[in-house]
Amino acid sequence: MATHKAVQVESLGGALTLTDVETAPPPRGHVRIAVAACGVCGTDHGVINGAFPVSWPVTPGHEIAGTVAELGDGVEGFAAGDRVAVGWFGGNCNRCLPCRKGKFMQCVEFQVPSLAYPGGYAESVTVPATALARIPDGLSFADAAPMGCAGVTTYNALRRTKAVAGDLVAVLGIGGLGHLGVQWARAMGFETVAIARGGEKAHDAKELGAHHYINSSAEDVAGALQDLGGAAVVLATAANSAAMGATVGGLGPEGELVIVGVTADPLPISPADLIQAGISVSGHPSGTSRDVEETMHFALQSGVRARIEERPLAEAAEAYAAMDEGRARYRMVLTM
Amino acid sequence: MATHKAVQVESLGGALTLTDVETAPPPRGHVRIAVAACGVCGTDHGVINGAFPVSWPVTPGHEIAGTVAELGDGVEGFAAGDRVAVGWFGGNCNRCLPCRKGKFMQCVEFQVPSLAYPGGYAESVTVPATALARIPDGLSFADAAPMGCAGVTTYNALRRTKAVAGDLVAVLGIGGLGHLGVQWARAMGFETVAIARGGEKAHDAKELGAHHYINSSAEDVAGALQDLGGAAVVLATAANSAAMGATVGGLGPEGELVIVGVTADPLPISPADLIQAGISVSGHPSGTSRDVEETMHFALQSGVRARIEERPLAEAAEAYAAMDEGRARYRMVLTM
Amino acid sequence: MATHKAVQVESLGGALTLTDVETAPPPRGHVRIAVAACGVCGTDHGVINGAFPVSWPVTPGHEIAGTVAELGDGVEGFAAGDRVAVGWFGGNCNRCLPCRKGKFMQCVEFQVPSLAYPGGYAESVTVPATALARIPDGLSFADAAPMGCAGVTTYNALRRTKAVAGDLVAVLGIGGLGHLGVQWARAMGFETVAIARGGEKAHDAKELGAHHYINSSAEDVAGALQDLGGAAVVLATAANSAAMGATVGGLGPEGELVIVGVTADPLPISPADLIQAGISVSGHPSGTSRDVEETMHFALQSGVRARIEERPLAEAAEAYAAMDEGRARYRMVLTM
Amino acid sequence: MATHKAVQVESLGGALTLTDVETAPPPRGHVRIAVAACGVCGTDHGVINGAFPVSWPVTPGHEIAGTVAELGDGVEGFAAGDRVAVGWFGGNCNRCLPCRKGKFMQCVEFQVPSLAYPGGYAESVTVPATALARIPDGLSFADAAPMGCAGVTTYNALRRTKAVAGDLVAVLGIGGLGHLGVQWARAMGFETVAIARGGEKAHDAKELGAHHYINSSAEDVAGALQDLGGAAVVLATAANSAAMGATVGGLGPEGELVIVGVTADPLPISPADLIQAGISVSGHPSGTSRDVEETMHFALQSGVRARIEERPLAEAAEAYAAMDEGRARYRMVLTM
Repeated sequence: MATHKAVQVESLGGALTLTDVETAPPPRGHVRIAVAACGVCGTDHGVINGAFPVSWPVTPGHEIAGTVAELGDGVEGFAAGDRVAVGWFGGNCNRCLPCRKGKFMQCVEFQVPSLAYPGGYAESVTVPATALARIPDGLSFADAAPMGCAGVTTYNALRRTKAVAGDLVAVLGIGGLGHLGVQWARAMGFETVAIARGGEKAHDAKELGAHHYINSSAEDVAGALQDLGGAAVVLATAANSAAMGATVGGLGPEGELVIVGVTADPLPISPADLIQAGISVSGHPSGTSRDVEETMHFALQSGVRARIEERPLAEAAEAYAAMDEGRARYRMVLTM
Repeated sequence: MATHKAVQVESLGGALTLTDVETAPPPRGHVRIAVAACGVCGTDHGVINGAFPVSWPVTPGHEIAGTVAELGDGVEGFAAGDRVAVGWFGGNCNRCLPCRKGKFMQCVEFQVPSLAYPGGYAESVTVPATALARIPDGLSFADAAPMGCAGVTTYNALRRTKAVAGDLVAVLGIGGLGHLGVQWARAMGFETVAIARGGEKAHDAKELGAHHYINSSAEDVAGALQDLGGAAVVLATAANSAAMGATVGGLGPEGELVIVGVTADPLPISPADLIQAGISVSGHPSGTSRDVEETMHFALQSGVRARIEERPLAEAAEAYAAMDEGRARYRMVLTM
Repeated sequence: MATHKAVQVESLGGALTLTDVETAPPPRGHVRIAVAACGVCGTDHGVINGAFPVSWPVTPGHEIAGTVAELGDGVEGFAAGDRVAVGWFGGNCNRCLPCRKGKFMQCVEFQVPSLAYPGGYAESVTVPATALARIPDGLSFADAAPMGCAGVTTYNALRRTKAVAGDLVAVLGIGGLGHLGVQWARAMGFETVAIARGGEKAHDAKELGAHHYINSSAEDVAGALQDLGGAAVVLATAANSAAMGATVGGLGPEGELVIVGVTADPLPISPADLIQAGISVSGHPSGTSRDVEETMHFALQSGVRARIEERPLAEAAEAYAAMDEGRARYRMVLTM
Repeated sequence: MATHKAVQVESLGGALTLTDVETAPPPRGHVRIAVAACGVCGTDHGVINGAFPVSWPVTPGHEIAGTVAELGDGVEGFAAGDRVAVGWFGGNCNRCLPCRKGKFMQCVEFQVPSLAYPGGYAESVTVPATALARIPDGLSFADAAPMGCAGVTTYNALRRTKAVAGDLVAVLGIGGLGHLGVQWARAMGFETVAIARGGEKAHDAKELGAHHYINSSAEDVAGALQDLGGAAVVLATAANSAAMGATVGGLGPEGELVIVGVTADPLPISPADLIQAGISVSGHPSGTSRDVEETMHFALQSGVRARIEERPLAEAAEAYAAMDEGRARYRMVLTM
């Protein structure tokens, strides 16, 4: 019996343990991937700690990059050795109503690696073929991995706003997602504002491309944005409803607060905050495997990369802890 | 000295008193209107009770219809006797940044009748020429008046959503605004849902064109909307944040909660409510004088009318009380 | 060996002959339909006369309605007896780039009944499961059939324009597609203009819901549209480039000429015709199986129906001739 | 009597002659500008040669930059010495229907410098206050001047397409407009293609930021674009209908051909070219004074500049000839 190494968490909130698990051939319509790299995402905390329905043990990881190792029946268009990535979008059905309208992110059978099947903190992972994004030449596995969630989520959210080049766009939170958001915003031609607590990240923010930095601990964020002319868009990557609410007054006419940072805390926003200026507040749900390909394409074109720290799979627990404790600058990536 | 009768409120929360006031010639760029009808809007309560900055005494009224009586210097395109309406949009500057981008509702010198100058509970009112909407032949003054606020606000909000004919669109609240919202939604080809507290308005809602009625006192609104397939849009006309929040779970993928009912109560909505389905929550600020014209044009084309109860100006206090106490079915209109 | 009757055309431009053909079980991912009705579309002329690549013999027909008779392996979500329609959209791959972006109409393996496989002038037809649209209760097979092409093409094109309820929308050509276009336009709340050659169809156009009728043989179309305020949209259903070009001057600012009538004749349009008013000219390619479902849903909601003349399958040649010679008022439908 | 020097053309197709003309005070609502720089645009040829209605003598020039010298009555918000630009958009009425809808480019009283009043090949020009765009600090007069037409036309057209960062965008024609189009496209994050006749401009195109260059004399443009994945947008700056038509086959699904190059030659495009892929062909009409400000803002932010050759006003005839004969690399600018 072939086996491979995988991290497992036995039960709610448990420790990350490296284990040997059986390597099964992929079922019909599925592909087995030899994992080369897997990003460590803040959402992995939620997976392990009960924010999503899972069946234990859980193998975390939804920022996967590797090569196709084995093909199940009926898979077309891929061959062993192909370089592929799988992100938060771990497969869709192509049959339900949302899928038939092209809204694949709202598939009623939407699958996420680590939730629907064992994730990418492992040497091997088996996924539906619909989950596969091709990695373009010139992008390494370690660079590709974070594009499957942190990358696509921020790129996709920004390119779907009404903002056009030259508009003022702010990114709230400079972490795993936000440090990519700032880079994308700059590469898209936006006048880019980084917003974070404290002055610590001001230097990095400028290096990443921000034209302006707002220290939300020291400044009135809404006022500071209005001083810059009012933001067309605030992309909220920090999972902090209070901080999100504080930006609404900084939006210009018909401005958009676009949220990718997940939290169940109510937003401190009222109808009166939205009506006169025609403000909208919306959530944005990552992106499909095709969106991941477009993200990687734009990364190559623009030079945008996640700033990563690589760790071997055996150090997954330490890498996870670094992320969980806010010590990552800015994305931990496990390499196999 | 020429005079005319006008309602005045002397101070915060004061009574509506009919008074004789001086009739002055209109300044440059302004027009004096002989008022024929003026709607009584829920916002008039806010005007009298301190929700907006005003200088006392206040003459309420921002749903004005009448004829041009006198022209100030520099006014082009209007003549004495022209039939005109003036709604919430009481004038813009055409010079500020928002105006120069065509976003007139966000004019930095935005004027509202009764706030910026004496309103329409009067025989005569003087307004900037930019405030004027032409009333089409075939629409009476009493029918035109409510189009300036209740009409344009709901029509404009609905036509600017992403919803297309055949989509499920719900109107929350069946009052002065909502009873028009239901009619517009039906006339636009939407599958129309009326949502209100209690069963009392179910009959009217169907008569107004609703395909479905949800009694929010007795039913789970979100569940009922999902049973109908999920709403593309909820137009929230009831100024009730809790009721608005209860509809979000009833939206379909990329659904929109569009708010026109003003309240400063926080919405019970979190990022987690918005992200997966890509939901947006936005405010919509009435419409310009041109929007009012288009509203009246569509009213004529579609047969949509406010259900009005007419009262003479001398009974303004009673008409206002009927509105304020929720007894209006559905719009009180003062006629001069 | 089971057989069924089907119309066949042996070679380019040949006659329609009723034949007995073998009834094979559906392959994996496919469904066999017992056809109840099939519309006769102008494009069938092109199929028979060389406008598309086909392999002979050809069975025409891409407006199919019937019941599921037999399921191939791997088909989920359908059962024998289900009422289904198949239109111009006869199947997509869900794997190519356009499909993965949700642009199914641009699938690189796009299939059309009668081109990719034998069409619906037959008692039985076998199609990919991706082609299936469910017919809602309350819509007959004969009413459902034309919705798969004439219906969805016009409804889809209209709902995807920028036009909103109250705008002036013209439909050029009052035939199989146009007589539905006029009805949809009216049901969507547009101020609706019908444009056709001669006065013959003026009465029908009004009955179908047109507010205005322009006789393009007698009137200057562009001038007549400008007299009505300028069209937001012209939907061109007549396959006549000269007639299309004649409408461009009748569009208002940022107006749209949307073309669904196929012809290879050059449009008599220059850059100078488009620039100052910001005009666009675009083509619109029918709609997906989900779009067909939404079309039928809106038909039920609004009461819009094709005006049909039914003929038995044995009279297919006569029905085709009636269509081809312009005698149909307005859609011939074969019933089995 | 105060006088200033101005170029005049006495009659249709006449020579450019430097003349002394009277300097009159600006009428109400107007501003007199001391011109510092004026660009020489291809459209000036049309102005002189009968493509537009003018009254002789004509002073060409609609890419004006200078300082406010004198204010007419009723002008607010400007003071003597303010640095301002005036482009193709030479004033609007703020009263007509298009203006009241915010579509200022379609103002029925739209004014263009040199057509509605003497243009900018002069030491002094008097314009309506609505025409004024403020020049930001850091942008010279010579750099600002071409932004009023060549700059805003291309920037505005590109930012209003559906294309988003990462999409393939081609610019047809590398001249006064196109060389800016390529720079904007790159600065907006598009994968940028330059298309021009011959190989001569390949080097410049790459320097200006193009990722790819297509020599339309040697290559099949449509095929070359499809080899790159199909263009989301082609911006056509060359006034050549045949060259525009040749790009349509190179557009991807729902691609857009956006035309800014004016010519009355018919486009060699048929409905069949547009329908299956859902292609649109549209014209784009420059931009307003506010758009010019946003163009200059983005120029400063991104570093985009016209490549200019400066000439003194006295050499206007030579500068015009250089432009007219295609010798400009890439924008002639008169300086006073």
